Amino acid sequence: MRLSQYLLPTVKETPADAEIASHQLMLRAGMIRRIAAGIYTYLPFGLRAVRKVEQIVREEMDRAGALELLMPMVIPAELWQESGRWQQYGRELLRLKDRKDAEFCLGPTHEEVITDVVRGTVKSYRQLPLNLYQIQGKFRDEIRPRFGLMRGREFIMKDAYSFDLDSAGADSAYERMYLAYQRIFKRCGLQFRAVEADTGNIGGSSSHEFMVLAASGEDAIVSCDSCDYAANVEKAQVRLPAGPRPAATQALELVATPGRKTVEEVAAFLGIELWRLVKTLLLQTDSGERLAVLLRGDHSLNTIKLCRLLGCQQVQLLDEAEVQQLSGAPAGFAGPLGLACRIIADRELSLLADFVVGANQADHHYRGVNLERDLQIGEFADLRQAQAGDGCPRCAGHLQAWRGIEVGHVFKLGTKYSEALGATVLNAEGREEPLVMGCYGIGIGRTVASAIEQNHDENGIIFPMPIAPYQVLIVLLNPKEDAAREAAQQLYDQLLQAGVEVLFDDRDERPGSKFKDADLLGIPMRVTVGGRSLKEGVIEVQARADGQQWRLTQAETADWLCCQVRQALAES
Amino acid sequence: MRLSQYLLPTVKETPADAEIASHQLMLRAGMIRRIAAGIYTYLPFGLRAVRKVEQIVREEMDRAGALELLMPMVIPAELWQESGRWQQYGRELLRLKDRKDAEFCLGPTHEEVITDVVRGTVKSYRQLPLNLYQIQGKFRDEIRPRFGLMRGREFIMKDAYSFDLDSAGADSAYERMYLAYQRIFKRCGLQFRAVEADTGNIGGSSSHEFMVLAASGEDAIVSCDSCDYAANVEKAQVRLPAGPRPAATQALELVATPGRKTVEEVAAFLGIELWRLVKTLLLQTDSGERLAVLLRGDHSLNTIKLCRLLGCQQVQLLDEAEVQQLSGAPAGFAGPLGLACRIIADRELSLLADFVVGANQADHHYRGVNLERDLQIGEFADLRQAQAGDGCPRCAGHLQAWRGIEVGHVFKLGTKYSEALGATVLNAEGREEPLVMGCYGIGIGRTVASAIEQNHDENGIIFPMPIAPYQVLIVLLNPKEDAAREAAQQLYDQLLQAGVEVLFDDRDERPGSKFKDADLLGIPMRVTVGGRSLKEGVIEVQARADGQQWRLTQAETADWLCCQVRQALAES
Repeated sequence: MRLSQYLLPTVKETPADAEIASHQLMLRAGMIRRIAAGIYTYLPFGLRAVRKVEQIVREEMDRAGALELLMPMVIPAELWQESGRWQQYGRELLRLKDRKDAEFCLGPTHEEVITDVVRGTVKSYRQLPLNLYQIQGKFRDEIRPRFGLMRGREFIMKDAYSFDLDSAGADSAYERMYLAYQRIFKRCGLQFRAVEADTGNIGGSSSHEFMVLAASGEDAIVSCDSCDYAANVEKAQVRLPAGPRPAATQALELVATPGRKTVEEVAAFLGIELWRLVKTLLLQTDSGERLAVLLRGDHSLNTIKLCRLLGCQQVQLLDEAEVQQLSGAPAGFAGPLGLACRIIADRELSLLADFVVGANQADHHYRGVNLERDLQIGEFADLRQAQAGDGCPRCAGHLQAWRGIEVGHVFKLGTKYSEALGATVLNAEGREEPLVMGCYGIGIGRTVASAIEQNHDENGIIFPMPIAPYQVLIVLLNPKEDAAREAAQQLYDQLLQAGVEVLFDDRDERPGSKFKDADLLGIPMRVTVGGRSLKEGVIEVQARADGQQWRLTQAETADWLCCQVRQALAES
Repeated sequence: MRLSQYLLPTVKETPADAEIASHQLMLRAGMIRRIAAGIYTYLPFGLRAVRKVEQIVREEMDRAGALELLMPMVIPAELWQESGRWQQYGRELLRLKDRKDAEFCLGPTHEEVITDVVRGTVKSYRQLPLNLYQIQGKFRDEIRPRFGLMRGREFIMKDAYSFDLDSAGADSAYERMYLAYQRIFKRCGLQFRAVEADTGNIGGSSSHEFMVLAASGEDAIVSCDSCDYAANVEKAQVRLPAGPRPAATQALELVATPGRKTVEEVAAFLGIELWRLVKTLLLQTDSGERLAVLLRGDHSLNTIKLCRLLGCQQVQLLDEAEVQQLSGAPAGFAGPLGLACRIIADRELSLLADFVVGANQADHHYRGVNLERDLQIGEFADLRQAQAGDGCPRCAGHLQAWRGIEVGHVFKLGTKYSEALGATVLNAEGREEPLVMGCYGIGIGRTVASAIEQNHDENGIIFPMPIAPYQVLIVLLNPKEDAAREAAQQLYDQLLQAGVEVLFDDRDERPGSKFKDADLLGIPMRVTVGGRSLKEGVIEVQARADGQQWRLTQAETADWLCCQVRQALAES
């Protein structure tokens, strides 16, 4: 493609409304253009990267035996009512009415539609196993769309759904998809990790997320430094340190802690370590139940674990007035002694002696608190967030912490949707069985954005070869110089002929501006044609990733580039 | 692909709710599945045909220098308000609100969005010409979705938009697209015709529709039997027969026509030919103006021509009471003599003498009416629908009538959208000029349906090779017969190796049922493996289109099929 005939509106300034590098760079490199909050047009340069990822995904889905179909974006309410999600899904589900006042939604995910397709077309176990996928625009009405394609409202997703007669079949479908996902993100040239994850509002029994590692990632993940355990912190377990609990050495004592409300303030005032101060969090569930959760001062609450334990959707902290009402003291001084509500303690409290808690009196805490002697706790549970340094739940290793961007998510759904929608098949004995399902998503646009988040420098994007919009960029220094123009043109023709994807900067611009754009666009190989080098018969090539340079003769350049590109693709 | 592992739910019975052949066959062949009125899932077999058409379209768009991008489906109301279409478009535009109550629509077409993209990225004439296209799901809330993919609500469309500095540039962009469309439909293997068309609610100065010829087509078109003139009847002109008008021979006379209301009844009662009876249509425009239109009894009114003449959006016939009020007579007896409203006559009336009109009295007509002597007409215009046998407006030939399915439409838009949205560039003199635009659509799903409408028989689909989901179907007669299974498997592997797209019917079904499915699916080449032929070392091949049969040796079959497929593709 000749840049003089292309639509590539590059921008020098960092856009004010873009917070993270990939968003800034995709706007600056003319890859995307915002049309409304969380809604973008993919410009030609950006669309090419999207298509590269789509193609890798498609090849690996096909290789894993999945069949491509295409479901609609506009979905009748009835299907979502059958599954119960019409009520449950919340406002991310954009609901609308057609001209006849019939209710529809814009599909944020397609479990209901695919289950309807399968219940209407699959009758016998002999038609199984089946795995159906699509690559399609989806819509989620995010309350805070941000970070460009990372959290958009309209976005491109690959979603696959497997159908099996039994759990063993479903497990092996899950395993095949897990391996396909490993291949996909490896082929995209990404550093990533598969982690155990919560199943959220998709449901099902277990799931893994595929996380591209990047400091700006919205997700915190942990992985073991010695085994292959890895999980989203939402889900991550930790090894309970070895017991038993030390014996009590202090007597229970009421101490004044005037104006000290935060754990840090109290610990500093009392001269104790943070872990010896036990936090009492006063909370309320979505059904109105009030309870207290006890946690070590250096730990934080994992609300997802708590919700699962309580069987609720949400918990929230009581406000000032409610804290006063329940504990009899202002916020910051609540404690378990004499508290009239359900109390649940994190497991690790069972190993703690001589600790400090709020006294349910303004400006006072208790010191020297000991279980059993001073405080009876009926419920212990794993309620805390894992963090770096925690013991691995699977082995003697320790957890490391990472930030990640979720680009894929695989779920074992079980029979949640097939039972709700009556999707059954006749088994070999002629008995009706509900289908056992799995679902498997990849955010296509988000994968492109993550690749940029992981691969850029202060000058611009550094595309991995497999998903680069073009593989080679020819920079013609001066289009008015006949010899250079002809040499560049010849190289362009040779590369096209060889099937190399090449962008030809034939614009009448200053070389400095062309090099700046070259760095910004991040095409893996940059070829400079013109100037003194060309007079010596030399063409300069530079790799965007590491800046490595080569000086080649005109005769050898095309073949050499072709080999480099093929090699880079073969290695991924 | 092995049919035993595929999702291909074929159906023997003709679905009750499908009226036309393509709709019936696409449902029966497991290509599509309805999810709501006008909303379909493309099942794997159907999606492959869709992708074939998309790929041909993409190649020809790229070849014509157009650049692919992808715009969103959910479009903010503001853009449509800027163009004025938010008010004008009617209820086919599905409007919706997001969680923050901001207004959006589902894009039925993207003139506004692309003009916004271009006004934000193109500043100078040096960035022109530009032609941008996308292949995308669109939504039109049709009041009567029907005929499957022919008139769906959610549908896949290719839409392209050209931007030029001046009309000459825009004309040449239009010409390039026109030629690209010719190549596309030819490559799809379709019988089609490009016809002049009305521009409808897209607007602009002129347009052509690409019509696939089929008896079930919703559009009536005419074409000249001697020059290349062709037009939608909505737009078609006819040659005015040679004058002058014959001299009057009859005196004006009031005649009783008791109970004769229709033109046929009156003509028969008076013993005259239909063309000698002049119809008086009493109409009202959307702004409330009432008028009468005079037409020969054998002609029909073209309301689009009339609306263009009057500068209105719609006209409708007066009801009984209004006719009585305006003409003083019941419907069926209105006439121009003494009628107190604007009267416009079709041009051909200027050549008529001694004709009959309603007398504005119940059960009476006037006979022997002659212009000037009896009746003064101030306005003559071309108001009638063209029909078979009419004179061509361009040459001495005559028009033929066809039915067609509109699969593509190209428009010269002029500056309608660029002026409304302020999309300008600086010209070579540094002056701001509004961009001159064109837009170019192809219904992808409708093209597949049209191909089936044009290519089927009583047993099923007959896919043209270039858009067939698979090129070769291997029918293994009995999977339990080792030699046959091995021969079929070997052929399957050889064909895949050679890049032939092959569906392998390896199911454990009766041969009769497999052959019925083969006819239904319409894959161009059917290969039968097994039975007595195979014992003689022979493999039978049959072409779906004409039933031609070949008996080949096992050794030669793969190569021979490969050649046949390549040849068929090369010819298209």
